Amino acid sequence: MAAPMMNLIMMPNATGAHLGGWRHPDAWSDIVMNLGHVVEATRIAERGKFDAVFLADGNAVREMDKPALFAANFPSARPAGFEPITVLSAVAMATKNIGLVATCTTSYDEPYSVARRFASLDHISAGRAGWNVVTSQYAGDALNFSRAENYGRDERYERAEEFVEVVKGLWDSWDEDAFPEDKATGRFLDPAKVHVLDHVGPHFQVKGPLNVARPPQGHPVVFMAGQSDRGRELAALHADAMFAAGDSMESCQRAYADIKARMATYGRAPDALRFLPSVVTYCGETEAEAERLFEELQELITPALGVHYLSKLVDKDLSGYDLDAPLPDLPEKVASGTSLRTYLIEGARRNNLTIRQTYQRALSSMGAPVIKGTPEQIADVLERWFRGKACDGFMVSNPVMPRSLNTFVDQVVPVLQKRGLFRTEYEGETMRERMGLPTPPNPRRAAAGLAAE
Amino acid sequence: MAAPMMNLIMMPNATGAHLGGWRHPDAWSDIVMNLGHVVEATRIAERGKFDAVFLADGNAVREMDKPALFAANFPSARPAGFEPITVLSAVAMATKNIGLVATCTTSYDEPYSVARRFASLDHISAGRAGWNVVTSQYAGDALNFSRAENYGRDERYERAEEFVEVVKGLWDSWDEDAFPEDKATGRFLDPAKVHVLDHVGPHFQVKGPLNVARPPQGHPVVFMAGQSDRGRELAALHADAMFAAGDSMESCQRAYADIKARMATYGRAPDALRFLPSVVTYCGETEAEAERLFEELQELITPALGVHYLSKLVDKDLSGYDLDAPLPDLPEKVASGTSLRTYLIEGARRNNLTIRQTYQRALSSMGAPVIKGTPEQIADVLERWFRGKACDGFMVSNPVMPRSLNTFVDQVVPVLQKRGLFRTEYEGETMRERMGLPTPPNPRRAAAGLAAE
Repeated sequence: MAAPMMNLIMMPNATGAHLGGWRHPDAWSDIVMNLGHVVEATRIAERGKFDAVFLADGNAVREMDKPALFAANFPSARPAGFEPITVLSAVAMATKNIGLVATCTTSYDEPYSVARRFASLDHISAGRAGWNVVTSQYAGDALNFSRAENYGRDERYERAEEFVEVVKGLWDSWDEDAFPEDKATGRFLDPAKVHVLDHVGPHFQVKGPLNVARPPQGHPVVFMAGQSDRGRELAALHADAMFAAGDSMESCQRAYADIKARMATYGRAPDALRFLPSVVTYCGETEAEAERLFEELQELITPALGVHYLSKLVDKDLSGYDLDAPLPDLPEKVASGTSLRTYLIEGARRNNLTIRQTYQRALSSMGAPVIKGTPEQIADVLERWFRGKACDGFMVSNPVMPRSLNTFVDQVVPVLQKRGLFRTEYEGETMRERMGLPTPPNPRRAAAGLAAE
Repeated sequence: MAAPMMNLIMMPNATGAHLGGWRHPDAWSDIVMNLGHVVEATRIAERGKFDAVFLADGNAVREMDKPALFAANFPSARPAGFEPITVLSAVAMATKNIGLVATCTTSYDEPYSVARRFASLDHISAGRAGWNVVTSQYAGDALNFSRAENYGRDERYERAEEFVEVVKGLWDSWDEDAFPEDKATGRFLDPAKVHVLDHVGPHFQVKGPLNVARPPQGHPVVFMAGQSDRGRELAALHADAMFAAGDSMESCQRAYADIKARMATYGRAPDALRFLPSVVTYCGETEAEAERLFEELQELITPALGVHYLSKLVDKDLSGYDLDAPLPDLPEKVASGTSLRTYLIEGARRNNLTIRQTYQRALSSMGAPVIKGTPEQIADVLERWFRGKACDGFMVSNPVMPRSLNTFVDQVVPVLQKRGLFRTEYEGETMRERMGLPTPPNPRRAAAGLAAE
């Protein structure tokens, strides 16, 4: 049995995943633009032998139209944080083995630039770069890139697919041995070992070659989220790892079977993609201690803030409603509808939850499954999911940083290691090797070099 | 008298400025994607109390149509190097005081992204980021960004000017004290201290605010080259430092007077911009030793390679011509004409140079003035230029890396220090302060915060 992957999800500024996490007494203070915290969080995860640290991202400040929520810094409002690739280049210098995954959109960037930055990060980190491919959906993003609105769903995915193809093609620009650098003969490079891409597609025309040598991993590890049908197809074709937000073991089992089946239609082996659902753990030495942490955090959210947060999630202003009454009628579909919205509304209906109970449910994990308990209990759940083919590993979010991450590394990881479910030392040279992913061959290697010129 | 600035110009992979520099026995071997060399070069410059390291850049592999030149890696062919911002984020972790200037084009990037990456680098480096603003002119760049050709001259500069305005506006998004991060009250940020840009212009529409806190320098230091009239106007309006490629003290004096006069029309004090011509120094303990290094390098370039190189610079294939005859007739203007081209052709005519003499003149410095001699002699030239109002400091290129940089730092810098012309210790908190540049106020600070929402 392969060891399950363990990846740390980090919000900008290394804040906790709970809406009130930054206010907890054990949370870091002074978190805005604090490089030390980002480095320290990554080092803790490296101490825990995590595969990678994963940086979320967006291209706009959010929630400015919801002043209470904005001022309270819901973590994904992202008022001020580091650009992910930039900060991970710095983090690379302070770590040795852990993978470094940066989110970068295909909607408002150029494939040549993205291929270049990730190839650069891969060289800087000696083979530890990962790219989380996203398309921009948040309405405010478009307004920062000279557009009135984001690309429509179809165009968004078409662009994304072509974008990823171009980036991978550019990573294949040079053979590994293209640079003899021979002082005696003056032969610096071998022109037969460079390959021009000459991509001409509906969205991009990119000649190449890339002006960066072939990345140490061949291709940096490609992550995708893929909730929708289009997103899953794209992941089945192109992703090395899939970041999933299933709300239960059963839904993850279905999504797991689904993605592995889709991969088969593209001729890819099931192991060529790691399916990694997001989980948030509240861990204590006893169940009571875990529950106490959870309650402490819930109490840090005032009803006004909770209602603002839920209003945002369900896309309706709930501020005039009785908190202890059920959710009002809500339209089934909205333009900005997310799977989290559907999950929250359906869950509230099914369980007869009040508005208060619904926001309390939402704010602890941003929709990801919450696992509460002792280290053994948390390990039990992770093991059950893993053995039950609900996943190949986990994306771990932490409610309070750095406390919850330290607890996970020092108490949950050793239990998994003792059960033979997780590595005790890093092996392999690159993130790709450590994740057991195949190294992509260079399809252009046998080609005629400069022939295309 | 203010101390003259001293900046290190570094080509990708920290190669030397001489076309044959990488082949010299004292040059680094194994230079492709060698992070250690980039770090080490920056540390040597920091040991020499340089203001900054400056990374050249381009967005395409060049010279593929000139196989001999391509295979020999003319430094600016740039077949494989780090993306500048990414690598300088890493270098920031291994240095403490030296400024970090990355070249980034306004032609094929987005102002929101560029503002974000430089603000991020400025936070990572605690106030040491600089942006060298360029517009893309090399024909191959366009082909990597879904365009058949680059923007025409007027549009290129219009875009650049608007781009820089937007980037500076985005850097003003947040007041310095916008983030109280008060755990007790739950007030993370102060909504009155964020400013929406709402830029609507002919080339860009950018709402803002930036999702990075105000940079430690207020604005990272803005460099520009500005050879043409349009370029000089842009620099007079927006640049903190101007990178110039004058070919003599007299031409630099003219350019110096010109830029300071242009600044006055924008109400800027002359000291608000540092004029920094590029120089290449060949230094030895004796004149003969300096000359020997120069000759050793010249001999590393075969006639075939020299002719290829000159052909590229003058935009005409000279391979059929007699090397020891004068340059053939060349059209006065060509589409890709640079000031270096004009300088070479006029110099050859004036001095009755042969083709061989002309390429030998070109390959030692890429057109920048060459200063050969002992440390005292080199310091004499630098002092004369500085006192003669030909410059406010220098951009120093080195023919052989790391040898020539070490020589400059260990032998030329102490002479300048002894004469009171250069700092002996770093002072000030940021690169901007160390360069004696004013810190830009935040013009939006007094504004009504979220009013624009």
